[in-house]
Amino acid sequence: MGMSLDSSVLCLLAAGAISYVEAAVQYYDWSVAYTYASPDCVEKLVMAVNGEVPGPRIDATEGDTIVVNLTNHLPTEGVVIHWHGMHQVGTPYYDGTASVSQCTINSGETFTYTFIVDRAGTYFWHGHFAMQRTAGLYGSIIVQLPDSQKEPFYYDDEASVLLSDWWHKSIYEQQLGLDSIPFRFVGEPQSLLIEGRGKYNCALDPGSNGASPSCLPCNASNPECAYHVIPVEHGKTYRLRIASITSLSSLNFVLEGHNLTVVTIDGRYIEPVVVENLDIYSGQSYSVLFTADQDQSRNYWAGINVRGRIPNTTTGLAVLQYLPNSTDLQLPPSKPPGSPAWDDFDYSLAQARLYKVRPGYEKPVPQSAGRTLILLNTQNKINGHIKWAINNISFVFTPTPFLAAFKLKLKNAFSPIAPPDVPPNKPDFNIFALPNPNDPSEINANFGSSPYVFKLGETVDVIVQNANTLNPNNSEIHPWHLHGHDFWILGYGKGKFDPANDPQSFNLADPPLRNTVAVFPYGWVAIRFVANNPGVWPFHCHIESHFYMGMGVIFAEGIHKLPSLPTETLGCGLTKPRH
Amino acid sequence: MGMSLDSSVLCLLAAGAISYVEAAVQYYDWSVAYTYASPDCVEKLVMAVNGEVPGPRIDATEGDTIVVNLTNHLPTEGVVIHWHGMHQVGTPYYDGTASVSQCTINSGETFTYTFIVDRAGTYFWHGHFAMQRTAGLYGSIIVQLPDSQKEPFYYDDEASVLLSDWWHKSIYEQQLGLDSIPFRFVGEPQSLLIEGRGKYNCALDPGSNGASPSCLPCNASNPECAYHVIPVEHGKTYRLRIASITSLSSLNFVLEGHNLTVVTIDGRYIEPVVVENLDIYSGQSYSVLFTADQDQSRNYWAGINVRGRIPNTTTGLAVLQYLPNSTDLQLPPSKPPGSPAWDDFDYSLAQARLYKVRPGYEKPVPQSAGRTLILLNTQNKINGHIKWAINNISFVFTPTPFLAAFKLKLKNAFSPIAPPDVPPNKPDFNIFALPNPNDPSEINANFGSSPYVFKLGETVDVIVQNANTLNPNNSEIHPWHLHGHDFWILGYGKGKFDPANDPQSFNLADPPLRNTVAVFPYGWVAIRFVANNPGVWPFHCHIESHFYMGMGVIFAEGIHKLPSLPTETLGCGLTKPRH
Repeated sequence: MGMSLDSSVLCLLAAGAISYVEAAVQYYDWSVAYTYASPDCVEKLVMAVNGEVPGPRIDATEGDTIVVNLTNHLPTEGVVIHWHGMHQVGTPYYDGTASVSQCTINSGETFTYTFIVDRAGTYFWHGHFAMQRTAGLYGSIIVQLPDSQKEPFYYDDEASVLLSDWWHKSIYEQQLGLDSIPFRFVGEPQSLLIEGRGKYNCALDPGSNGASPSCLPCNASNPECAYHVIPVEHGKTYRLRIASITSLSSLNFVLEGHNLTVVTIDGRYIEPVVVENLDIYSGQSYSVLFTADQDQSRNYWAGINVRGRIPNTTTGLAVLQYLPNSTDLQLPPSKPPGSPAWDDFDYSLAQARLYKVRPGYEKPVPQSAGRTLILLNTQNKINGHIKWAINNISFVFTPTPFLAAFKLKLKNAFSPIAPPDVPPNKPDFNIFALPNPNDPSEINANFGSSPYVFKLGETVDVIVQNANTLNPNNSEIHPWHLHGHDFWILGYGKGKFDPANDPQSFNLADPPLRNTVAVFPYGWVAIRFVANNPGVWPFHCHIESHFYMGMGVIFAEGIHKLPSLPTETLGCGLTKPRH
Repeated sequence: MGMSLDSSVLCLLAAGAISYVEAAVQYYDWSVAYTYASPDCVEKLVMAVNGEVPGPRIDATEGDTIVVNLTNHLPTEGVVIHWHGMHQVGTPYYDGTASVSQCTINSGETFTYTFIVDRAGTYFWHGHFAMQRTAGLYGSIIVQLPDSQKEPFYYDDEASVLLSDWWHKSIYEQQLGLDSIPFRFVGEPQSLLIEGRGKYNCALDPGSNGASPSCLPCNASNPECAYHVIPVEHGKTYRLRIASITSLSSLNFVLEGHNLTVVTIDGRYIEPVVVENLDIYSGQSYSVLFTADQDQSRNYWAGINVRGRIPNTTTGLAVLQYLPNSTDLQLPPSKPPGSPAWDDFDYSLAQARLYKVRPGYEKPVPQSAGRTLILLNTQNKINGHIKWAINNISFVFTPTPFLAAFKLKLKNAFSPIAPPDVPPNKPDFNIFALPNPNDPSEINANFGSSPYVFKLGETVDVIVQNANTLNPNNSEIHPWHLHGHDFWILGYGKGKFDPANDPQSFNLADPPLRNTVAVFPYGWVAIRFVANNPGVWPFHCHIESHFYMGMGVIFAEGIHKLPSLPTETLGCGLTKPRH
């Protein structure tokens, strides 16, 4: 179960990707199994690595190679681990995405992930098979710069918090509800967790708050659900790494009494900006700086509140502790910190627009794209099931991984009909209204699973267009995450994207880079990336239930340059052996 | 989802096993998925086939071929289906046992089982991967004689009931409890079901009775939990097929006011015997005859009660309805029927000893064996985990199926060290006592998974020896089931088997045949079978949690004659493809 550091000259896996460099190889032995845990005081089954909730944190230096020998001790389930933010150049088969990069690791099998942490920053790993992430299968990846390099900002010390939302219902119940007619939504979370700690109000009746605490013990004095503590010394400046692995909730993070200077987003440098509180969407990370310059006789709350959905979950809390305060933790005397109104989307949009690339630290954005996709994101009923669709196609997971299907030229692994680059037959689609009951193309979508294939090296623009859901006057936040690449955010817009005029307002001067971006209700976002990483890469909403319900697409590029696939990634679907 | 009958000349799969016969081929399309169901009035997630609980019943005629196209719609779990009582001669790869006959069917995959129902009788199918059977994955297989043959007993009509026990906790919770330190047992069932129907007392608090109803609706007027009804006409004689698929409970079946004439056990003919009530252990089936000769102005209870464990579950009930009583079901005016005292093991032993083969209907038993195994069945702690062990080896499931390991000569799939034929170093082992704290061989067992390999055609005797558990003055009933074969029951004994003297009391005249036999507390059972079916065959306790905790062994024979394995059975463990 231990980890060892082996500083050595590394023979890189991706021949030609990077030449030999001095770097470390870190070996981990991980066991995935269920365990009992009470992260919010209510005991439930949690999918854990080595019994830890959240799972083990990986601390590495840019350029290191991570080797994770993962043994699946789940009795009946397959499992995969995705390394969110790692680009997997040359190792697309270790991206850890079920149905895309590999066959899932069967019960009892051991699978070895080997990949390079190719960029300093704040990342995380998580399950990427149905809703296993929601079961607790996640942890942090913190990547430092090599000693020879310095960050372009000063801090005395650092800390990190991984944010999540938490349900008492099992993922099996959640998944079945989403699959059912009538639809049963997962509902708002019972708790918000900071670094895996929250406090459910045990006085609430079982079944309240939309919850099913499974009648297991709720124990508010359980040390497992004690507040997470961030210790600071007065006068010092801290780098706080904040990452969100939420299943549903968009969050606003507040550090009571302290402004936050945002310096990186998803591992990319931005021109520093000061905020009073920080919006963060699932799949994103930030580094913020703050100085412990407040009254040191007391402590302060760190709090997270839900944004974009009518909140039904109390503020998630941690404690900023001014040392040398008593070792008995003094709770802050103040109320839990509030956040802007949950539906103040102008606030969130304005904050998102604050971020600009830090000059001199990133490659310039290409000034034009070779291909543009406009992805209309709708909610649809298909055969009575509520689903999400992109250009009328609701993504379904295939039993054969796309990567193997391409590499091994397997016919019948997915539909040969390419998905549409723009919304089909919908020039007049009204994103503000319910689907038009007289237009079959608006009320019908279909299941599908064919990929968008790009030319290697092509620059691609993607506009994600939000719309009204199946409920009147409702449109939701969707954080879209791209595997294998970071992208530039060229712009956010309200209403319907106008292909003739809106590109003129794209920021081609200093757009920020990141790997996950929110599209706001009734709005659009435009991103640009270079399809320069041979592999197959999902681009999907990072809300666990939304991707499960079909909100995603598959990108592929450099098919002719795909590396050979390790045998251990095969064996399912059409990749079974022939004897 | 339908089924079609195709009467045709069948080209048999098992070359040489049977020659061409006139028989039907039945095709089924099955989808395995979770569904909401309330078999005992409490709604919970149930693993269902085509949404049915219990799953679809297969009705066939001896010699038919069954083709089941099974698609796995479980989001993250593999699945297999075992055809309990089918001998799979020539098709050992379709026995449907995880870790033994095939790789589990991954989420999204379709797998086709094709096998011959080689013997008339009452059987069933069920999940055989960890504890998926307990999640509800089971159904009946009823096999009639061909029209050209007649049963050696008369009846006017027939009915069948599949008996089961039912928990409100999910199998994930149950499995984790069994795996945990401290151990958390699954506890007594919340309900006993007859043909998938029971009635939980909704007035009981959630969490009572050891239960976790998951705070889901308990609705005693739900038609799903209405009593199963067996309609009869006065004066007619009925064949009632009774099968038990319980996860834990040994049962006693009572048909109020009617004696039962037992005529077949596990599809084998016995000399008819009359009983007032019928013991039935998990994995067994019976055909009983009864005549509807009671007061026809009222109805009668069919009831099942727990045997062998302190009962904490109310009688499971169905209604024997005398037609033409009102179509509004009149419940019987009487109290639920009782059974012999739960711990009257002498009663059960005496009943088990009643059964003798029906002369002229079965092959004679071989008069001697070429090999004898004495399997000492103990409960042990291994690394702090409570496990069951056989001759000090607690069975663990391997990621590579044994059948593939043999056929493909895969080294490292299992330990090359053969398991011991007799208890190692334990001539003085006291089966009535707790393990001797001074004897490491008594307090230590180890995990293992190597098979017993028999010569093809060899006659094998197996004595299963029961013992005290880790609790003082406790020994439990274990119904042992053998795949791929029926066996003769040579005798039951109390206390410790004496290899020198006890064989002299073996019944070599008219022992009954069956596929599942109970070993009673502090007792032993001796069985004999002919190892004439090339394949790999588990022999295990049919209590779901006990096999999960290691109470089983693997038998193999005719390795050199194993058929080629279908590609779709491979792809896991060491059977991944090489490219």
